[in-house]
Amino acid sequence: MALLRSYVSGGWHTAADEGVPLHDAATGEEVARISSRGVDFAAALEYGRRVGGPALRELTFHQRAALLKALASHLREHREELYALSARTGATLGDSKFDVDGGIGVLFSYASKGKRELPNDTVYVEGNVEPLSRGGTFVAQHIATPLRGVAVQINAFNFPVWGPLEKFAPAFLAGVPSLVKPASQTAYLTARLVELIIGSGILPEGSLQFVAGSAGDLLDHVTAQDLVSFTGSASTAQKLRAHPVIVRNAVRFNAEADSLNCSILGPDARPGTTEFDLFVKQLVTEMTVKAGQKCTAIRRAFVPVELLDDVAQAASERLAKVTIGNPASEGVRMGALASLEQREEVRRSLKALLDAGSVVFGDPERVEVVDADAERGAFISPVLLKADPERSEPHEVEAFGPVSTLMPYTSTEQVVDFAARGGGSLAGSVVSADREFVREVVLGAAPFHGRLLVLDADDAKESTGHGSPMPQLVHGGPGRAGGGEEMGGVRGVLHHMQRTAVQGSPAVLSAVTGRWVAGAPRAEGVHPFRKSLAELKIGDSVVAGPRTVTQADIDHFAEFTGDTFYAHTDPEAAAANPLFGGIVAHGYLVVSFAAGLFVSPEPGPVLANYGLENLRFLTPVKVGDALTVTLTAKQITPRIDQDYGEVRWDADVTNAQGESVAKYDVLTLVSKEQP
Amino acid sequence: MALLRSYVSGGWHTAADEGVPLHDAATGEEVARISSRGVDFAAALEYGRRVGGPALRELTFHQRAALLKALASHLREHREELYALSARTGATLGDSKFDVDGGIGVLFSYASKGKRELPNDTVYVEGNVEPLSRGGTFVAQHIATPLRGVAVQINAFNFPVWGPLEKFAPAFLAGVPSLVKPASQTAYLTARLVELIIGSGILPEGSLQFVAGSAGDLLDHVTAQDLVSFTGSASTAQKLRAHPVIVRNAVRFNAEADSLNCSILGPDARPGTTEFDLFVKQLVTEMTVKAGQKCTAIRRAFVPVELLDDVAQAASERLAKVTIGNPASEGVRMGALASLEQREEVRRSLKALLDAGSVVFGDPERVEVVDADAERGAFISPVLLKADPERSEPHEVEAFGPVSTLMPYTSTEQVVDFAARGGGSLAGSVVSADREFVREVVLGAAPFHGRLLVLDADDAKESTGHGSPMPQLVHGGPGRAGGGEEMGGVRGVLHHMQRTAVQGSPAVLSAVTGRWVAGAPRAEGVHPFRKSLAELKIGDSVVAGPRTVTQADIDHFAEFTGDTFYAHTDPEAAAANPLFGGIVAHGYLVVSFAAGLFVSPEPGPVLANYGLENLRFLTPVKVGDALTVTLTAKQITPRIDQDYGEVRWDADVTNAQGESVAKYDVLTLVSKEQP
Repeated sequence: MALLRSYVSGGWHTAADEGVPLHDAATGEEVARISSRGVDFAAALEYGRRVGGPALRELTFHQRAALLKALASHLREHREELYALSARTGATLGDSKFDVDGGIGVLFSYASKGKRELPNDTVYVEGNVEPLSRGGTFVAQHIATPLRGVAVQINAFNFPVWGPLEKFAPAFLAGVPSLVKPASQTAYLTARLVELIIGSGILPEGSLQFVAGSAGDLLDHVTAQDLVSFTGSASTAQKLRAHPVIVRNAVRFNAEADSLNCSILGPDARPGTTEFDLFVKQLVTEMTVKAGQKCTAIRRAFVPVELLDDVAQAASERLAKVTIGNPASEGVRMGALASLEQREEVRRSLKALLDAGSVVFGDPERVEVVDADAERGAFISPVLLKADPERSEPHEVEAFGPVSTLMPYTSTEQVVDFAARGGGSLAGSVVSADREFVREVVLGAAPFHGRLLVLDADDAKESTGHGSPMPQLVHGGPGRAGGGEEMGGVRGVLHHMQRTAVQGSPAVLSAVTGRWVAGAPRAEGVHPFRKSLAELKIGDSVVAGPRTVTQADIDHFAEFTGDTFYAHTDPEAAAANPLFGGIVAHGYLVVSFAAGLFVSPEPGPVLANYGLENLRFLTPVKVGDALTVTLTAKQITPRIDQDYGEVRWDADVTNAQGESVAKYDVLTLVSKEQP
Repeated sequence: MALLRSYVSGGWHTAADEGVPLHDAATGEEVARISSRGVDFAAALEYGRRVGGPALRELTFHQRAALLKALASHLREHREELYALSARTGATLGDSKFDVDGGIGVLFSYASKGKRELPNDTVYVEGNVEPLSRGGTFVAQHIATPLRGVAVQINAFNFPVWGPLEKFAPAFLAGVPSLVKPASQTAYLTARLVELIIGSGILPEGSLQFVAGSAGDLLDHVTAQDLVSFTGSASTAQKLRAHPVIVRNAVRFNAEADSLNCSILGPDARPGTTEFDLFVKQLVTEMTVKAGQKCTAIRRAFVPVELLDDVAQAASERLAKVTIGNPASEGVRMGALASLEQREEVRRSLKALLDAGSVVFGDPERVEVVDADAERGAFISPVLLKADPERSEPHEVEAFGPVSTLMPYTSTEQVVDFAARGGGSLAGSVVSADREFVREVVLGAAPFHGRLLVLDADDAKESTGHGSPMPQLVHGGPGRAGGGEEMGGVRGVLHHMQRTAVQGSPAVLSAVTGRWVAGAPRAEGVHPFRKSLAELKIGDSVVAGPRTVTQADIDHFAEFTGDTFYAHTDPEAAAANPLFGGIVAHGYLVVSFAAGLFVSPEPGPVLANYGLENLRFLTPVKVGDALTVTLTAKQITPRIDQDYGEVRWDADVTNAQGESVAKYDVLTLVSKEQP
């Protein structure tokens, strides 16, 4: 069989030895061989830093997002091939879709987030401008810039497609090249994925490298500008976290370890309720999808003590209907574990769990299979246990297979405490229609969880389920779950960037960030609404007014709009208002007049005002107040796929005393060129 | 002299032995003795978790903020006493103010941030609601809840007041109790600070504990819910990071280590320019404040090669004027190092640096002092070196005292590379009036820095300087600087909380977060503007309309406001607009009409509309469109110091087809009780 190749330092590398065999999980046949012998890891890292990083940093977030989208579309065309190879890992078609389509979905999601939530720029500006002085000449702004190293991504065997892609997408979007090192067992699938990616030519050279086989001395060469993210067992996570080079260089290290995730049934969810059925169905699904080899699978199922027998019976009935066998065969619901070694590991863990409980369903040593040999393939029966939750084993021992433990509880406080005994989990779920119970459990369990799902009749149809990390949401949990955090939309991008507080004058901050900062110089001249996106510069502004607000204006606006709030219409009542002390103009009147002042009516590059942000009415406008508005181009964002882009304007409406009466951002769409 | 006491497990603890002596930095006299013998560290942690945590978590962010403010005011009353004790650490009055006033300033800043940027609630809701399904029944929201453990804070000797307070304030605001362990050398000052704090009775019991002396087996007892934050040397940071319990439990560990910070003079800043003088003045200040014992001090000063001699001469002249001696004496500008051991350490580092360079100013072995004994006190001369920047020592060896090294550079690219050779720094500065140079240096150096200051004629008067971490800004840097992050306003609060993605139906998310989420049930009935803050509930809503927009309305609004933009007034031109394809109503008209629909005019609990947020015009409004507005109470925030609070309303304006034409949040002030 073929020896898997690594893709490093700009080329495909074939190992200098024969490699070790990788076996089909269901048949035991050899699928491929693997070895990284001869890979120069120091050179690969340096190549990523020297070639991949600069190429990525030349692109804006929007350009990187567009490449992610193109890559996702490309991979979607090759799904069938990936599914077929995935079956050899023991995965059913459903499991394969979870892995393959899930991974492609992460790319699409990051492409979309990148376009909508990140600027079409290379610098990310975070949070508000922080005033640091009374006079306003000294201010600060946090920015985020890509780390100058390589994101080293060490993945687990259970998701050979999703695993690499969910780590790659945010790194790429951040502008940081990746070096992917999958677990050997299923690396042939990742290898094919990488071949498809590299072959597509979509990515800038150096932005993705791939190591098939051992990581060798890779970690000896990481610096403070590199990152290491790991998915796998808690024990390996600990070893890597304490790696002397990671420690010495304070390398950013993120671990995502399988954890003893719980699912909690509410006391309201008695047999016959929708929630009871949802709980049982979800439990069985989580036990059997990927043969339970999911970091997020339910290991601990807590049910009200009086419902324990009902749940045990209902779950057993469902489990009995699960057909196990050749994952490629019709009707098979659960395939094999990833390897025979994995099955031995599960059986060992089951022994430890059985010290604290008993079997409700399944036999760890025997299983009936369809179209397969139960011994040559890594097949095992789903095993549902029940145990005393006061024992430590069910909270600490994880059987990484189709294994869960039912445990009883007697009060909300108690079940929150039980949930916490897992020592930190990736995911938990609460199945209940009792909102008060849900609130208490969620807020009580939140400090111990990265993600919590509440399942009930309202969301069941659309829920993505307990076990599915979502690219929009953080994935990772405290303690036992690794203490890390991945994805979470833009958060995952920022994990790959250095946050820096930049202090200086408003003019300097504007120059550094490319966004106009209040207090920086303004340029008046041609009305900025007459300028195309190509001509407009931040700081371009117009000062318009004054317009004096009359009693008649206020009366008329009240009558015309129907906004007859007493502070605009009833002098006596308005005088009693503690904030106004008399008739005030409508806030909407103020912003409408301001628009009337700053508008440039004739057709031109400005296409539309599509919104306003951060509007604050700062000083009441009284009859006789003369309003002036200053509008300044603050941020200019050309769209890469349209002939227009967004311009954000700073609007400051002042009275004759120079006090700001209203401040806000006006959002417009502006053509790239003059019409 | 007195043996310093610890404050643990609810009481003052005196060590079981005599302790070791702590000496006055300037006179060598014994100031106090220190020992933690007999402290039960496991019990102290458990006490914090059991007593301090629950007490803090009962308070809202605003209540905690109010306590921080009260504490800051209390400590301000005792500044003189703290200054006097601070002088014994070798600090001049200026140095003491930097430490003491700086620390109190952090409390005030966090009090203010807590009130303005955090909710008056116990749960922090982060980011937007994430849609996860087409039908909208399954959505998610990230929340942050306080970790259930103790924030263990291990501080450095150089800021015995600021150090503990800058770590304590964000932890307290997050709802996490602190256990403070200062470096022994100057612990008598921290001990007095803690006495003042505990004595004030302002803080809930258990929210602050204090250990004078060794940390013993403290770290053997930390869990995944505790945090450890450390300030001090890079070598100790590494030791703690690899502590087996911290590694095993994936304990959140934050290190802030002194680093080889740089300051860069721009090529424009020739002798005679303001920036040249600013650079030299700042360099000398950073060398001499706290006798250079600042993690953020300038260790590497990069100047254009042609300006090296000028800078050397100007800096030497300034350094020659610095009076050194008894920090309590009039006219003394620089006091002593914290201890004789510290002086030995500095001299050792200087030897290593001198291998790569030469002395420009100062003699490491000799110094003239005022009102003091140069040998009994830990006095040392400021020492300015110059060195070859291609050597490694100046980028790697830190002399933690009044020591800096001048180095030449020849291009922007080169100086950015030199800056990066520090391997990660807390702070850097650029002194230049050349905006292009500044932009290149800042963006190039940002990945290696936690904070960058740009100093020029514009901000010099108000600048807080290179060496001052600010509570609003992140403090910490990558790599050599520890790889951590402290403060940064609300970011520092969130460091003490667990972020959890909560998935469920909109109704469930509303119940969990206490904020109405779009798609959750609404309750109609009494107009919600007639309800006081006490009566109002999230989800209370009013549906008003329809009102049909006529051509006359649009014409009239254009004329009245002056907003005669062609899309509202010129049918032919409007038809050519790619987004509208015909006359559209003004966005301001739409929101004004909406206000006219949802208003409840008579005096009542609603006092004012103080702003709008996130307004988006989603569908063009054409003549004949009938507008309906639905206004729903989304978030209710009573102010703890006023008889009113904020209510945020969700506004959704729809047309007759049920499409949203505008969505936004309306911000109002509402009385707590009926008037």
